Amino acid sequence: MTLINENFLKLQAGYLFPEIGRRVRAFAAANPSAKIIRLGIGDVTEPLPPAVIAAMHRAVDEMADVATFKGYGPDLGYEFLIDAIIEHDYKARGVQIGRDEVFISDGSKCDTGNIQEIFGLDNVIAVTDPVYPVYVDTNVMAGRTGDADRNGRYEGIVYLPCTAENHFVPALPERKVDIIYLCYPNNPTGAVATKEELARWVEYARRNNATIFYDAAYEAYITDPAIPHSIYEVPGAKEVAIEFRSFSKTAGFTGVRCAFTVVPRTLKVSTRDGRAVEVNPVWNRRHSTKFNGVSYITQAGAAAVYTPEGIQQVHSIIDLYMGNAETIRQSLSKLGYKVYGGVNAPYVWLKTPNGMGSWEFFDLLLSKANVVGTPGAGFGAAGEGYFRLSAFNHPDRVQEALRRFAKL
Amino acid sequence: MTLINENFLKLQAGYLFPEIGRRVRAFAAANPSAKIIRLGIGDVTEPLPPAVIAAMHRAVDEMADVATFKGYGPDLGYEFLIDAIIEHDYKARGVQIGRDEVFISDGSKCDTGNIQEIFGLDNVIAVTDPVYPVYVDTNVMAGRTGDADRNGRYEGIVYLPCTAENHFVPALPERKVDIIYLCYPNNPTGAVATKEELARWVEYARRNNATIFYDAAYEAYITDPAIPHSIYEVPGAKEVAIEFRSFSKTAGFTGVRCAFTVVPRTLKVSTRDGRAVEVNPVWNRRHSTKFNGVSYITQAGAAAVYTPEGIQQVHSIIDLYMGNAETIRQSLSKLGYKVYGGVNAPYVWLKTPNGMGSWEFFDLLLSKANVVGTPGAGFGAAGEGYFRLSAFNHPDRVQEALRRFAKL
Repeated sequence: MTLINENFLKLQAGYLFPEIGRRVRAFAAANPSAKIIRLGIGDVTEPLPPAVIAAMHRAVDEMADVATFKGYGPDLGYEFLIDAIIEHDYKARGVQIGRDEVFISDGSKCDTGNIQEIFGLDNVIAVTDPVYPVYVDTNVMAGRTGDADRNGRYEGIVYLPCTAENHFVPALPERKVDIIYLCYPNNPTGAVATKEELARWVEYARRNNATIFYDAAYEAYITDPAIPHSIYEVPGAKEVAIEFRSFSKTAGFTGVRCAFTVVPRTLKVSTRDGRAVEVNPVWNRRHSTKFNGVSYITQAGAAAVYTPEGIQQVHSIIDLYMGNAETIRQSLSKLGYKVYGGVNAPYVWLKTPNGMGSWEFFDLLLSKANVVGTPGAGFGAAGEGYFRLSAFNHPDRVQEALRRFAKL
Repeated sequence: MTLINENFLKLQAGYLFPEIGRRVRAFAAANPSAKIIRLGIGDVTEPLPPAVIAAMHRAVDEMADVATFKGYGPDLGYEFLIDAIIEHDYKARGVQIGRDEVFISDGSKCDTGNIQEIFGLDNVIAVTDPVYPVYVDTNVMAGRTGDADRNGRYEGIVYLPCTAENHFVPALPERKVDIIYLCYPNNPTGAVATKEELARWVEYARRNNATIFYDAAYEAYITDPAIPHSIYEVPGAKEVAIEFRSFSKTAGFTGVRCAFTVVPRTLKVSTRDGRAVEVNPVWNRRHSTKFNGVSYITQAGAAAVYTPEGIQQVHSIIDLYMGNAETIRQSLSKLGYKVYGGVNAPYVWLKTPNGMGSWEFFDLLLSKANVVGTPGAGFGAAGEGYFRLSAFNHPDRVQEALRRFAKL
């Protein structure tokens, strides 16, 4: 008799974004004339930079010629891309990363979802609350939790609340934890971590032999020069942290799929009987067994992000989105909303008016203003009473959305 | 203290193909003038069909224009691709498949590796021996096995030997099993399953409430019209089987990455207390949580495989490879080798001469003929004494490899 993995049956409702999609589709079907503006799912709207387009056309042509055709690529990714990453994302910020420490993948969602597989089931997991749902759901699937309580919090996971009261910066956990998921600039709150705050986490991890999964998918949106882009800018982090990066939000690759994960050779964890194990070769084994590389065309496009033209074009696109974030912040503040984030991150996090529930506000905004946002409760119990607006849209659409907000 | 998943430490040596890569690189470094011919890893060598190239150029251009830019795609894949698959791969062979039963992915290696995650750890797994290593290794990683014995067989897995003696068609398992991995046309033996043989497995699965994972990545190489391309051509299979398909070998997508998995709505398995659970929504949940879709450009290219020009171009490429397979079969037979497969599959499976070990034959062939093949033992204990040659190369290279064989 084939048995299901019953951990999947513990999962609450659908994954957040499909649920939003369902509600939006139902509303659109019932109101075909409504002009819906989407500031919900964090999906980019600007076309790919011209340097990326040109590189992908060249790569497609290479695939058409027997002399330049590429079959399976190298397990970890093409060296031309890995070298560009090491040079521009790390060396330029004073961080030394080796070629065999960078793993090219098809997305940070996949990497942050899969990374837990190589760690034991007995590890105690800590997440911030609110949190990107993938971190939690993949641990539920693996069996690291019990059931969810009525707030949607799973037994066995340590939640670190982030609210306006603590400026969305979580306190260190009270009980000892083994793995901590951190995401800065933060999805969904738009908060950032200073070097001192990250150093506190690195110190915690070193003292407790814990490991930090650091999701830096939004680092390109940092405008304050004092904010670190990589956790490895903190001394000692290479012994305790894995870092996730993505081209999705940086270069508009949400529909193209390219990301990377850094697993330093110096990161060691333990067997149950206390033997030290290097994490890098274990992730390498998983990566080369359960994954088969990223499209050559995609990798060629990603490498173009690091050319002089690519860098400039990406900056322009990010400036456009960050202009939206500023517009959202200012307009909503004027309307009396309490708003957070949106300065070093493409997300504005707002307090729902009059203590309204966040799904209630979602439905109100959809039905009255035809604007789609993301209910804070979808990111965790501490997100209740908050709402996420994304800066990913065309400026005229964002302005139209804000005019509708004003009429609410 | 962060704990490693100790199941990873049970894995034997490296994954097969990286190990071959290491030996070939070491030989090439020591013998820089050697002209190595690769008939080892099953990687295609012909460029992408012109219809695919044209579709990908168009898709790249769409990504350059704000009006046609595509961000995140639909969770399951674009309907234009799903509909083409349903029409050409299934309806044309009398099989009805629904849109929500097809999951577009970035590769069959990933899908056949990941599928086990949604099933319980207590299931008894059966694999043929020899076998594609991913099926076994991913179950080891998940913790469904004990340690490996000195033949590399893991405790807890049921191995079904396939040798010349049983014509590479395994007998039904003697002990009851819950999940059976089948791959036809077979990698590595090149054997195929008749409709009657598949019906016997479907009947076994129905009688024992077992589930079949059917890997049909090589179905495009079937030349005999009586051989089924899909397990769903067998009545009743939609209640007991998941099918995996790929564009890698069909259309030269090994470096482009596109595949799909069919999970019928009618497939049900059980909880430990005997409640029936539909598998499709559980796989859907995993797919939408741990994966984020395939590049739009890649999906556009894959859909072009089903256009009239695409179909014709793909046929020509497959004919070229199958011509190679026929050349390998005939030449080696003349040289006195016992050869199998290569008629409905791009792999020729041969008995090593004089009872030579398969890694020994690998090293001999590499050092004396500068030809790379795949040692049968790399696919399992029953593969010892066999060797795989792939038909994926240019015809002149294949002929040159065979001339060197003749001089061995």
